[in-house]
Amino acid sequence: MFDLLTFGEAMVRFTPDHYKVMEQADTFRCYVGGSELNTAVGLARLGMKTAWISKLPDNPLGRLILNKAREQGVDTGYIVRDKENRAGLYFMEQGASPRPSQVIYDRQYSSFTTFRFKEADWETLIKGTKWVHLSGITSGLNADLARVNLEILKLAKARGCMTSYDLNYRSRLWPPDEARKAQEPMMEYIDVLVSTEEDIVNIFKIGDIKEEKFQDLDKERYFNVAEEARKKFGLKIVCLTLRENKGVLHNTWTAIACSQGKRYEDEKRELEVIDRVGAGDSFTAGFIFGYLEKKDIRHSLRFGNAFACLKHSIPGDFNLCTRDDVERLLKKENLRIKR
Amino acid sequence: MFDLLTFGEAMVRFTPDHYKVMEQADTFRCYVGGSELNTAVGLARLGMKTAWISKLPDNPLGRLILNKAREQGVDTGYIVRDKENRAGLYFMEQGASPRPSQVIYDRQYSSFTTFRFKEADWETLIKGTKWVHLSGITSGLNADLARVNLEILKLAKARGCMTSYDLNYRSRLWPPDEARKAQEPMMEYIDVLVSTEEDIVNIFKIGDIKEEKFQDLDKERYFNVAEEARKKFGLKIVCLTLRENKGVLHNTWTAIACSQGKRYEDEKRELEVIDRVGAGDSFTAGFIFGYLEKKDIRHSLRFGNAFACLKHSIPGDFNLCTRDDVERLLKKENLRIKR
Amino acid sequence: MFDLLTFGEAMVRFTPDHYKVMEQADTFRCYVGGSELNTAVGLARLGMKTAWISKLPDNPLGRLILNKAREQGVDTGYIVRDKENRAGLYFMEQGASPRPSQVIYDRQYSSFTTFRFKEADWETLIKGTKWVHLSGITSGLNADLARVNLEILKLAKARGCMTSYDLNYRSRLWPPDEARKAQEPMMEYIDVLVSTEEDIVNIFKIGDIKEEKFQDLDKERYFNVAEEARKKFGLKIVCLTLRENKGVLHNTWTAIACSQGKRYEDEKRELEVIDRVGAGDSFTAGFIFGYLEKKDIRHSLRFGNAFACLKHSIPGDFNLCTRDDVERLLKKENLRIKR
Amino acid sequence: MFDLLTFGEAMVRFTPDHYKVMEQADTFRCYVGGSELNTAVGLARLGMKTAWISKLPDNPLGRLILNKAREQGVDTGYIVRDKENRAGLYFMEQGASPRPSQVIYDRQYSSFTTFRFKEADWETLIKGTKWVHLSGITSGLNADLARVNLEILKLAKARGCMTSYDLNYRSRLWPPDEARKAQEPMMEYIDVLVSTEEDIVNIFKIGDIKEEKFQDLDKERYFNVAEEARKKFGLKIVCLTLRENKGVLHNTWTAIACSQGKRYEDEKRELEVIDRVGAGDSFTAGFIFGYLEKKDIRHSLRFGNAFACLKHSIPGDFNLCTRDDVERLLKKENLRIKR
Amino acid sequence: MFDLLTFGEAMVRFTPDHYKVMEQADTFRCYVGGSELNTAVGLARLGMKTAWISKLPDNPLGRLILNKAREQGVDTGYIVRDKENRAGLYFMEQGASPRPSQVIYDRQYSSFTTFRFKEADWETLIKGTKWVHLSGITSGLNADLARVNLEILKLAKARGCMTSYDLNYRSRLWPPDEARKAQEPMMEYIDVLVSTEEDIVNIFKIGDIKEEKFQDLDKERYFNVAEEARKKFGLKIVCLTLRENKGVLHNTWTAIACSQGKRYEDEKRELEVIDRVGAGDSFTAGFIFGYLEKKDIRHSLRFGNAFACLKHSIPGDFNLCTRDDVERLLKKENLRIKR
Amino acid sequence: MFDLLTFGEAMVRFTPDHYKVMEQADTFRCYVGGSELNTAVGLARLGMKTAWISKLPDNPLGRLILNKAREQGVDTGYIVRDKENRAGLYFMEQGASPRPSQVIYDRQYSSFTTFRFKEADWETLIKGTKWVHLSGITSGLNADLARVNLEILKLAKARGCMTSYDLNYRSRLWPPDEARKAQEPMMEYIDVLVSTEEDIVNIFKIGDIKEEKFQDLDKERYFNVAEEARKKFGLKIVCLTLRENKGVLHNTWTAIACSQGKRYEDEKRELEVIDRVGAGDSFTAGFIFGYLEKKDIRHSLRFGNAFACLKHSIPGDFNLCTRDDVERLLKKENLRIKR
Repeated sequence: MFDLLTFGEAMVRFTPDHYKVMEQADTFRCYVGGSELNTAVGLARLGMKTAWISKLPDNPLGRLILNKAREQGVDTGYIVRDKENRAGLYFMEQGASPRPSQVIYDRQYSSFTTFRFKEADWETLIKGTKWVHLSGITSGLNADLARVNLEILKLAKARGCMTSYDLNYRSRLWPPDEARKAQEPMMEYIDVLVSTEEDIVNIFKIGDIKEEKFQDLDKERYFNVAEEARKKFGLKIVCLTLRENKGVLHNTWTAIACSQGKRYEDEKRELEVIDRVGAGDSFTAGFIFGYLEKKDIRHSLRFGNAFACLKHSIPGDFNLCTRDDVERLLKKENLRIKR
Repeated sequence: MFDLLTFGEAMVRFTPDHYKVMEQADTFRCYVGGSELNTAVGLARLGMKTAWISKLPDNPLGRLILNKAREQGVDTGYIVRDKENRAGLYFMEQGASPRPSQVIYDRQYSSFTTFRFKEADWETLIKGTKWVHLSGITSGLNADLARVNLEILKLAKARGCMTSYDLNYRSRLWPPDEARKAQEPMMEYIDVLVSTEEDIVNIFKIGDIKEEKFQDLDKERYFNVAEEARKKFGLKIVCLTLRENKGVLHNTWTAIACSQGKRYEDEKRELEVIDRVGAGDSFTAGFIFGYLEKKDIRHSLRFGNAFACLKHSIPGDFNLCTRDDVERLLKKENLRIKR
Repeated sequence: MFDLLTFGEAMVRFTPDHYKVMEQADTFRCYVGGSELNTAVGLARLGMKTAWISKLPDNPLGRLILNKAREQGVDTGYIVRDKENRAGLYFMEQGASPRPSQVIYDRQYSSFTTFRFKEADWETLIKGTKWVHLSGITSGLNADLARVNLEILKLAKARGCMTSYDLNYRSRLWPPDEARKAQEPMMEYIDVLVSTEEDIVNIFKIGDIKEEKFQDLDKERYFNVAEEARKKFGLKIVCLTLRENKGVLHNTWTAIACSQGKRYEDEKRELEVIDRVGAGDSFTAGFIFGYLEKKDIRHSLRFGNAFACLKHSIPGDFNLCTRDDVERLLKKENLRIKR
Repeated sequence: MFDLLTFGEAMVRFTPDHYKVMEQADTFRCYVGGSELNTAVGLARLGMKTAWISKLPDNPLGRLILNKAREQGVDTGYIVRDKENRAGLYFMEQGASPRPSQVIYDRQYSSFTTFRFKEADWETLIKGTKWVHLSGITSGLNADLARVNLEILKLAKARGCMTSYDLNYRSRLWPPDEARKAQEPMMEYIDVLVSTEEDIVNIFKIGDIKEEKFQDLDKERYFNVAEEARKKFGLKIVCLTLRENKGVLHNTWTAIACSQGKRYEDEKRELEVIDRVGAGDSFTAGFIFGYLEKKDIRHSLRFGNAFACLKHSIPGDFNLCTRDDVERLLKKENLRIKR
Repeated sequence: MFDLLTFGEAMVRFTPDHYKVMEQADTFRCYVGGSELNTAVGLARLGMKTAWISKLPDNPLGRLILNKAREQGVDTGYIVRDKENRAGLYFMEQGASPRPSQVIYDRQYSSFTTFRFKEADWETLIKGTKWVHLSGITSGLNADLARVNLEILKLAKARGCMTSYDLNYRSRLWPPDEARKAQEPMMEYIDVLVSTEEDIVNIFKIGDIKEEKFQDLDKERYFNVAEEARKKFGLKIVCLTLRENKGVLHNTWTAIACSQGKRYEDEKRELEVIDRVGAGDSFTAGFIFGYLEKKDIRHSLRFGNAFACLKHSIPGDFNLCTRDDVERLLKKENLRIKR
Repeated sequence: MFDLLTFGEAMVRFTPDHYKVMEQADTFRCYVGGSELNTAVGLARLGMKTAWISKLPDNPLGRLILNKAREQGVDTGYIVRDKENRAGLYFMEQGASPRPSQVIYDRQYSSFTTFRFKEADWETLIKGTKWVHLSGITSGLNADLARVNLEILKLAKARGCMTSYDLNYRSRLWPPDEARKAQEPMMEYIDVLVSTEEDIVNIFKIGDIKEEKFQDLDKERYFNVAEEARKKFGLKIVCLTLRENKGVLHNTWTAIACSQGKRYEDEKRELEVIDRVGAGDSFTAGFIFGYLEKKDIRHSLRFGNAFACLKHSIPGDFNLCTRDDVERLLKKENLRIKR
């Protein structure tokens, strides 16, 4: 039915203007975002047919979220609405070195946390759908939602979809042990695992924890972690996104992939960071796009990285760049003003 | 200890710019407000010593609320902080005829809803305090808070404070019957009851319900309702605020009071409405100010009305006018530009 | 296929902030609008399935227009894109008495002006579609587009759709004579004609021209004009929208309808004007909604009027109110703040 | 050399956004204004050649003021610059009934207050200039400036210019007695005196002081005051501007003139007030324009009133309307949106 | 008559706030710019007498453009106005690495494109004028305008003006071949040619095209290209501006000049880019200023570079820095806050 | 009575949005700041009890200043108010390389400049107060205020307070010689002197003046200057703050201290500069906090540096970071987004 089906929560995001901290904010800019929706939006921007399944309150904030997804071409026709609960919110303070950016979630008791598997017609949705993407945030919200994620993965696998999963570990949602217990059973239904090395190490105890070294990119070590995870869970592909924080407003980005013993890497790009939220989701979108287009991991990795890098220049969670933007970047066009 | 002590919840308020509805908002202006805090701020602006007791999360939104109260001179030194819960929020869409303004509360599960009587040292706070003001919003949040309100009233009465209570009925919080049951026992400890006629009729079934007539000001009927309530509960003073909605942006305001068989009324003013939230709280603040100053009901009523009318011209919940502004209005200075 | 199909141009609209005139503007707020799209958006907001056919450049401004239509639930899947031409723009200065608001169009040479009938698959689009709505703006853009309008009307009529047409005369596009010649042939394919009295008088020379009297609402005269037009062209229903400009920011609104000798009128409402652009389109949307729902002209007129009145409170061309808002207004709920 | 030459101070004006009072303002909009400059700008907008003589600091604020005058076509080539003093500032809080708007001046010690007659080449400037306009604000700033005003008037009169003077009494600058003493000697050199009745009564003790009646327009009384002043000082024309403050945001405006025993009046217009500062200066500009064009007092009065009324719709001190706008208003075009 | 006379088009520029892309913009900041006007503004800011000849529509956008030029002291008294055509517009999206900034022109059918030589009194304008500056953008708009450029150059040369020309190649306006054919005949009337190496290579096929190397500054190669062009066309001076795009927001800038076999170079500066549009025009303005002041190429080059570098810190197309700013930079004052 | 008592002037600060220079600003953001108040706010944010003594006009700008101090928890109960004078203002243009930021003071004739020692009850204020902090800005405003500073220092010393003094030399206020004469007598009452090397060299002629080398950090030389100053004046501790301006928006920061022959240094941090005003004041606040907590110079220096570095990321003069933020930075947490 779709090129990509995603399931997860999206929230209204409030960000103070002008690098202000929340305590001094007089106005907040408003965006919409959530990991799985961000991925669906990314793929829609690249020209594919995507749907996002979620649950939203039937009030102005719920409509705001739905409409912003629809604006970008994501199919929102299967979203469940309720009248009892609230919309998830989050607040983001944009930092500058040496003050890191900060996210404060206010998503408890949201409509989405009450979603149950039977609230969507998954058989119909998955039929003819090429790819299903889920993330560990949903699994971390509560045990019911972890079960929904597992059910979707099982069904998608059974119906022949490609499946991907972004670990997206959030320490404020659950401890690593719980994350491991809930997500290990999902691994057999996953084709592509996307993560940072840090999350894999924390959750699955694969590789060494050397937190102080995360800043520099020691690729060999990262490949080893990726490969070990791939083998342990019998995954088709493992992607690790690698970010250096030279400053809060100056990052570098690359990602690696391994698949069936092969290792794929790509150039590392310098980023002037306007808004880094959703970059990982853009990577996933770009990777899926590349893969659906050419079934080529190297191409997918390059496309995913380019799309992720471009995301950093766009305010909000959504990546509003287009396929043309990605292709110009891959062709190494210079940074001069285009006119 | 204070001229006025209040207890209640304050929230962060988000209002879209430029009369936008929430679904189209790209920026939200941020204010802080809550009925009892608004009253404390009003009295502080008029030059009195006020304190506000509440419970707030120990996070940026909690600090934002506390700081905005402190900015206006309200004592915030007795506010309880917790680390488990959230800050109450509310969203306000400013309307224009024929679209009424709309408030959407998102205050469930807030820190304040977990407040218990023993969390503040009420004996110390009330000792030497002249006036204690509470409202029906707190009572409506949950049964525990209704009990806290009752306990505070009992103690305040026992220690010789003047007490006031604004019914402030919110139909989304509780049905009228529940509001009656919870609040009737409080009445014997209340000196001054502030309300609209509508709320008294709805909750206490005093007077006739003629909803379609609320628009025009039939003072005789209002006095009867006020007087009946005063007698029934043995209150010292009952004030009814009377608003006509000629438009959303054009209102009139006056209020009446009755006390020991005497009836007090005041002129009705035309209002160009910039932001009407908190006008009732301003009335209460002005009334208390007038009463503490002169123990004269007519003066209190006039001062309360003038302060309430001025509130409509100030964005946000707080009334930032000063005693000078009120006195100029009472002297009937014209509306020319002051320079 | 759809409840409503519309065809026409939409533009990016730029409006200076804070009632500034364009010469002093430092920032412009950006909206999207166009008569037929506004109508489609209105019906989509009310819960119906609508599509908008148009032609847009394949550039950021073209995408901006398309996305804003899609955000509100209008089907944009049939819009034609080109790479040669530009997006239509318009600038609007919001006035205040005695300075009227002013619109400056910059829509020449737009992609839409090159649209030809064969660029859309009209047979497919119209099949199963209940209602087709067009307007005189399209006809006035150029002779080719007037022909497209005529072709669509013929086909829609032939396939059993209800058809409506808003005269929407713009004197800067064409002289009355030309407008008459191009549009008279369309009349036989139109079921519902929506217009102001002024436009009918100007174009079709029906009724007297008494320009100086347009301010007050002389309903008898209006009914006569409507009835005469209805008879002359064999229309099913003629609706005339009636606006009084008491000020730029204070209007009144009502509309009348006549059909088969019957005259329908409705209450007149006072409006605090935030943005009056698109009110007529909202009337049409509300009228169509009412008619599709109940086939009752009185109901349609009341629904159309209520929806049109609400539009005046919403910035931008689109009416973002909902069915609930309309029903609350029809129930004559008061203008108090809703909470 | 010029159609109009003016002399006076202009200041940078700061106004909080959104009807905020200064204490809550987080952003201030910035404008430039000053009575005599406003008049020069008005006449330049109407198409005439105007110059403004002043003294400004040679710093960014001084340049800001000069540039904003130049932007509107006023000749700024004769402005004196210094390096020692500051730019005058003023703060304006926009009110809403019942809170009047308020201006707080911060203009002491400005460069302009040090201006002396010899700093400009008045002979050259006045040669060939048709009209010289001054105001009582300058005279009130200090005795030196009052002397400069007197010298300019003498010279202008001697060289055959028309001269006008706006009393513009500011009670914070000087007491009425002082204003009378300083300005009575100027009267013999003035052709056209522009004032409110209130200022003439206060300063020259002409007519009765009935402050409580200023709200309603008792034209007979106003004509008497105007006529008495005209006779007393041997003025050619006296104009009184008449404003009713129905609300802060709803005013009416008209003006009367008397000359050689003849009385001129004009229609009174309803105004939706966006920004009333500078309306009197617009009246003067329109009156001068009308007089220079046709030497007809009735025409001048009508033109001045129309231009003054339009000013109320424009944010800032300057009237950015054009001659076309005035003529459309004089032709009584309706308030519909122009497109 | 003037120190500098320029001729060309200026447009209203719209830029989304906060690095937003156009599709997500809710507000656009508005500026005015155009290469030749930018140069005139720069020279006016530095204290010289400049005029800009152009053609603008007689509507608010046309007045906006004219006024913004006049605000900065450029003589706008010779601009032609028409009532038939539109104002040129352009949209600029500010990028951040790796997303380059992007300009979308919407300037077709503008008033300026209809300008013909006879619409200005060139003999009068050029008489006594020291320098005439034109650019290749005008030549690229259409063949008529290329002819106007040629006529102006011939006349200026004949009347003894210094002439300069900025190639300013825009690939969206015309192909290189056409640009060569139209502009080669102009070369003999040009004293100073300003360009990037890229444009000279593309248009005149001088030097090698090594596009991938444009990022680093190989000065020897640049001097060779400049010298070859100078000789080929018998130019007095050729200036090449050299920009490195280390990032979108981090550039370096320098420029070289060659004249009569001598080569001039200058230091390269690091730039934190706020807005790079108009930097080349600032270089030209600074160069002309330096040359008119001292007739010294080294001085002119240094002055031009410093002024161009400062431009990058100013939002909008105009360089609002002053001569003091340039001189402080040339004295190598540090970057500490000045107070 | 307090952990920290400060005395000095605070001003309203106006900063154009978006890196605009003042001449092009249409809106100004409004902050409050002043060196000594900034220090008091910093310490209050870190959790200590602070008071700020000053003198402010009793008008909206005076209240704005007072309230913003109170908002952050600084005791404002001892501030003197007057009705005659004005509030100090300052304007700040945010630069970008190579244009430095610029401050324009407009603080002459302010209420604070009229402050005299006897206007506060210093004995009461100082009793039980742990630390008194003053700065050279106050001394530089006029001779009376220099005397007040001296009196306060004497009294504080006599009553056993720790005292600190920030030289804060402002060349626009006084020449170095005058600064030396006025401040040398204060030195014997000062425990901790905070300064830049540049100011010590300029004022006290200690060390060599090598202005061109100030950019790079030659610590040995800085220690020598600090040590020499410490010995010469018998100070307990001398702190020198060391800033490198790699760009306007990219600085590094560190500070050194010397005390009784010991030298203390700390790491140098890279800063992405959002707003550098008040960083030195934050250093002082952090240093005082560390010292009051642990009496350990190394700890104080590290705490001061971390707090100063964090300040650069906060718009406005106040450091709104918290103790948690400082401690996370001292623990070397990475710059990833916190969530």
